[in-house]
Amino acid sequence: MINVQFAARPERWDSYGPALTKAFEAADLTVDLRQDHAPEEVDYIVYAPNSDLQDFTPYTRCKAVLNLWAGVEAIVGNKTLTMPLARMVDFGLTQGMVEWVTGHVLRHHLDIDYNLERQNGVWDKHLPPLSRDRPVTILGIGELGSACAQAVAGLGFPVTGWSRSPKEVAGITCLSGEKGLRQALETAQILVLLLPLTKGTENILNADSLARMPKGAYIINPGRGPLIDDTALLAALDQGQIARATLDVFREEPLPSDHPYWSHPQVTVTPHIAAETRPDTAAEVIADNIDRSERGARLRYLVDRNAGY
Amino acid sequence: MINVQFAARPERWDSYGPALTKAFEAADLTVDLRQDHAPEEVDYIVYAPNSDLQDFTPYTRCKAVLNLWAGVEAIVGNKTLTMPLARMVDFGLTQGMVEWVTGHVLRHHLDIDYNLERQNGVWDKHLPPLSRDRPVTILGIGELGSACAQAVAGLGFPVTGWSRSPKEVAGITCLSGEKGLRQALETAQILVLLLPLTKGTENILNADSLARMPKGAYIINPGRGPLIDDTALLAALDQGQIARATLDVFREEPLPSDHPYWSHPQVTVTPHIAAETRPDTAAEVIADNIDRSERGARLRYLVDRNAGY
Repeated sequence: MINVQFAARPERWDSYGPALTKAFEAADLTVDLRQDHAPEEVDYIVYAPNSDLQDFTPYTRCKAVLNLWAGVEAIVGNKTLTMPLARMVDFGLTQGMVEWVTGHVLRHHLDIDYNLERQNGVWDKHLPPLSRDRPVTILGIGELGSACAQAVAGLGFPVTGWSRSPKEVAGITCLSGEKGLRQALETAQILVLLLPLTKGTENILNADSLARMPKGAYIINPGRGPLIDDTALLAALDQGQIARATLDVFREEPLPSDHPYWSHPQVTVTPHIAAETRPDTAAEVIADNIDRSERGARLRYLVDRNAGY
Repeated sequence: MINVQFAARPERWDSYGPALTKAFEAADLTVDLRQDHAPEEVDYIVYAPNSDLQDFTPYTRCKAVLNLWAGVEAIVGNKTLTMPLARMVDFGLTQGMVEWVTGHVLRHHLDIDYNLERQNGVWDKHLPPLSRDRPVTILGIGELGSACAQAVAGLGFPVTGWSRSPKEVAGITCLSGEKGLRQALETAQILVLLLPLTKGTENILNADSLARMPKGAYIINPGRGPLIDDTALLAALDQGQIARATLDVFREEPLPSDHPYWSHPQVTVTPHIAAETRPDTAAEVIADNIDRSERGARLRYLVDRNAGY
């Protein structure tokens, strides 16, 4: 019997309890999962940095702390946490992003909104081109961007990926640097923003870059809100330079209810749902790490305490 | 010299005439392509079932009728059509269908309509499951159905394909027969209809089969209108048994402007746009079949008159 302590906000128990139980069973692990084990009897701690557990000293036989969050900055400096610490790398988060991006790329490509807005009894044929004639550009081709790029390319779209420094992704035209950015924008009938937020990427979509895009292009932003100069985007939408924008992230979240994005007919607001950590898949990552530990194998996603991540 | 009769609506001539001429030249075929050959001098007929040509008796030397449409139900029972009949299997048509089906599968999977209907300033998170937890069933796994099945499976959905007689498609759970149909319906959170229209498939989606599906399922019909018992579908939508339906084909087209589908809030009507034959690629298929026939090779996509497709 492996004793696993669940140490996160109590309201997480309803979703994570069943997900962890299911994942442990699927991994053939015999686990007693509780929120109230006696500390000295705990083998593993499933942990969220905002839980009440901050002193790890009494957990004398604990073999590892398995973080539910990708970020560990709130706990990595805790001197009582002397056992191995793993962060969360949830494949469900990447997969959810791929599905959301591919769905909205196809929605705009097929102009599904045109049909949804015309349920008026008029048989109005409006045929999109084939995907091979619809170039898609993805700004940011890290873990998430390259996964999205490959899914979209798999459906026949010519995909250009851009990153600040040169990268290679199979099946994708990869560009980099300032000149590459201009080139990536010029062909982008659909533009997906998946860049990290840095000083160099803030407002990367501004009046100048919007003007470089083909007239009637679509913008999809599941990356970071400040990548977009909101005033410039609203102007480009009003001028018809941009046909529609689908935005999942914003400078202020929740997006204030009086923000012009909510009421703009060419803008779709989604409430930061493109990438979420999923209890089911996160539980599978944790079960896999407990299984590795019990087999004497190296844990995945171990935190380097000196580097801090 | 090969005499080819173009027998479709006259307005199709402008796009198909040049495309066919180009394809015949590319295939090294010396063809006299016209809309007004004397019937007894015609070697091949490029045909659309809605053309004025319905009596094939005078076409005494015609070696084959090459359909411009995938569907042949309007012509397969014509007793004067005694020569070989090939249906259209066009890259552009198949690819367009794959894009349309994948787009609407993702639209319903992500519940994009939920977001589109709630651009009201309320930050209302509503997270879909991952594709691996959303079983999709495709009824009909011929050329179009299997292409769609593989695209959808490529995005992580578990896909079940059903056909009357047993088939195998890589990466898809294939079922057949009456018992297989019941099984395919029972798991179908999203159901795509891509069956040919025969006596055995008419009204295949009826009160009984709709009731077998999981509550809150989605229906996507880019196949044939009469596959659905419309009254039963409307009742299932009103009862919440079916969450939404996206319908591209209908018993009567254009769909009459007073048909209840147009105004039903859970129904999206699209005007028969999922699969359009694209002149350039369709012309290449027809040129290839004439070339095969002239060489004495077996035509591709020959219709089985007994099966009806």
